[in-house]
Amino acid sequence: MKVEELGEFGLIRRITQQIARRAVECDASVIIGLGDDAAAWEKTSGVVEVLTTDTLVEGRHFDRKYTSWLDVGWKALASNLSDIAAMGATPSLVLVTLGLPYDLDVESVDAFYDGILECAAEYGGVVVGGDIVGSSEFFATIALIGKSSDALLLRSNAREGDVIAVTGTLGRASAGLVLLKNNLENGTTRTSVLRSAYARPEPRMSDGKLLVSHGICCAMDISDGFLADLGKLCEASAVGALIYASAIPIHPEVRRMFPEQFMDFGLGGGEDYELVFTGSRRIVDGLIKVLPSGGTIVGEIVQGQPGSVVVQDDSGCVINVDSTGWDHLLR
Amino acid sequence: MKVEELGEFGLIRRITQQIARRAVECDASVIIGLGDDAAAWEKTSGVVEVLTTDTLVEGRHFDRKYTSWLDVGWKALASNLSDIAAMGATPSLVLVTLGLPYDLDVESVDAFYDGILECAAEYGGVVVGGDIVGSSEFFATIALIGKSSDALLLRSNAREGDVIAVTGTLGRASAGLVLLKNNLENGTTRTSVLRSAYARPEPRMSDGKLLVSHGICCAMDISDGFLADLGKLCEASAVGALIYASAIPIHPEVRRMFPEQFMDFGLGGGEDYELVFTGSRRIVDGLIKVLPSGGTIVGEIVQGQPGSVVVQDDSGCVINVDSTGWDHLLR
Repeated sequence: MKVEELGEFGLIRRITQQIARRAVECDASVIIGLGDDAAAWEKTSGVVEVLTTDTLVEGRHFDRKYTSWLDVGWKALASNLSDIAAMGATPSLVLVTLGLPYDLDVESVDAFYDGILECAAEYGGVVVGGDIVGSSEFFATIALIGKSSDALLLRSNAREGDVIAVTGTLGRASAGLVLLKNNLENGTTRTSVLRSAYARPEPRMSDGKLLVSHGICCAMDISDGFLADLGKLCEASAVGALIYASAIPIHPEVRRMFPEQFMDFGLGGGEDYELVFTGSRRIVDGLIKVLPSGGTIVGEIVQGQPGSVVVQDDSGCVINVDSTGWDHLLR
Repeated sequence: MKVEELGEFGLIRRITQQIARRAVECDASVIIGLGDDAAAWEKTSGVVEVLTTDTLVEGRHFDRKYTSWLDVGWKALASNLSDIAAMGATPSLVLVTLGLPYDLDVESVDAFYDGILECAAEYGGVVVGGDIVGSSEFFATIALIGKSSDALLLRSNAREGDVIAVTGTLGRASAGLVLLKNNLENGTTRTSVLRSAYARPEPRMSDGKLLVSHGICCAMDISDGFLADLGKLCEASAVGALIYASAIPIHPEVRRMFPEQFMDFGLGGGEDYELVFTGSRRIVDGLIKVLPSGGTIVGEIVQGQPGSVVVQDDSGCVINVDSTGWDHLLR
């Protein structure tokens, strides 16, 4: 069935029922959820709320040829959750706006929403509303509200002398995308970790909370590539950064599959959804031993042109990196 | 200059500066605004927050041929504010997501944001974040948070015996669109009220607050056409509605310009952004005398198939109405 046969309100009803069937226990403070002009909720004092939004557009951020609608839905929410994780907050309410081509299958929308709901069941968030419009290409905008009763992790809190660390490993998602695009090793177990890093990113919710509880106050998520995002963090903090190339944690499968390019993937590849954070060496040393996703010190915050990031090899030589991240409007 | 020349981050910086230049006094409770992963704010207890989102897509909701970018921006926010007004709440925080064709002029984006900021200056709301992505057609999704320390206006609160009333007049926006599309009376003062109703809708913020303070508890805004939206209200309240055609407040210029079609515009035309509300005759009679936008009783809530709306003429005959609203996915 095509969405144009069902119509907007039929589709909204369908999605509402779909959500109701899978209803996560709803936050008791939600007063108005789906079905009214707006969602409403009540907060007690002392709790800080955070709000973020992120959009996927077909043909720009994903391709149906190698991404299932289920995975598109998952990723649409996961990319927002990653922003909430990077604040050290906990997700609460989700608004979903869909732009849908007239001839899209309703089953695709079902699968898309299933992906959102699977991700929400795993990491949190209750869908409380949204909007559906017609458009020539598919897009999905999610607005996500989170909350925290602790301090927040801000980009602007890096200080000279801090060490720089990242969770997990870098470059998996961009390497996975290359495999998917070129249909390389499709179906092999060994490289599935790369494909799933691209298709099913895991927002670092627990890591974010742990950073806060250990007294870290500066972090952001790595969605546009490590160097590009670190540059934004440094710009916000009016500092520079020095990165040791050999310290970058690159997954062994990325090294094996791309022996010439692995460093470009690690430093420049997008969509890793790991966290980069800074803090005193003492705190970070202790912290990386207990982070659920693991952690690695990769450099230090230095005086310098705000936003400038220098990458050094083991002999202290500056390395030029080809790929410096993803800008949604530059071609 | 094209947006592809400026790039995403250049554009974000440009918009951030544009907003800073026009900064409305920012709500003191905003802790994190533009420039971090998420916006954050703190609420005191007893205050209810509301959250809504609405999207405009070029070619579906507007056409550059007869809508300026300034007006597109205004309307993008106004349509969200209208939802907040329909809850009886006050706008607070705004997130703006833009999908931009690569070859769009930066000046167009400037004008679009000017429209948002003009509307925010007039009716409230502080832009605290958003997202920009590339897309083949322009779209804008706004997420808007509002707050209220009073009861909210819900669609589900209509009761049998309530009278139904609307603010302002109906059909102006759809009549204005016909004038613009066909270049009729372009530039004449007499019909400018119709064109501006389409291009610069005025969200009924003060009216919404007044409804609440007078004890009304059921309302929604009329964006998809009066009958279509009233049907949704009745469905949410599990009631029917009887409408007196002759009572529908239709602007004299709509009657004059469209002597054959004015009733279709009034009952079915979209984008009026007036409020429809229900309540006891005693309360509504008093209220419509003091509503800033005026008010008119147009029918009553009756027992019946939930969501069913019947329109009668003066002799009690049922009228068939051609146009029953706008569904974004039906062609």
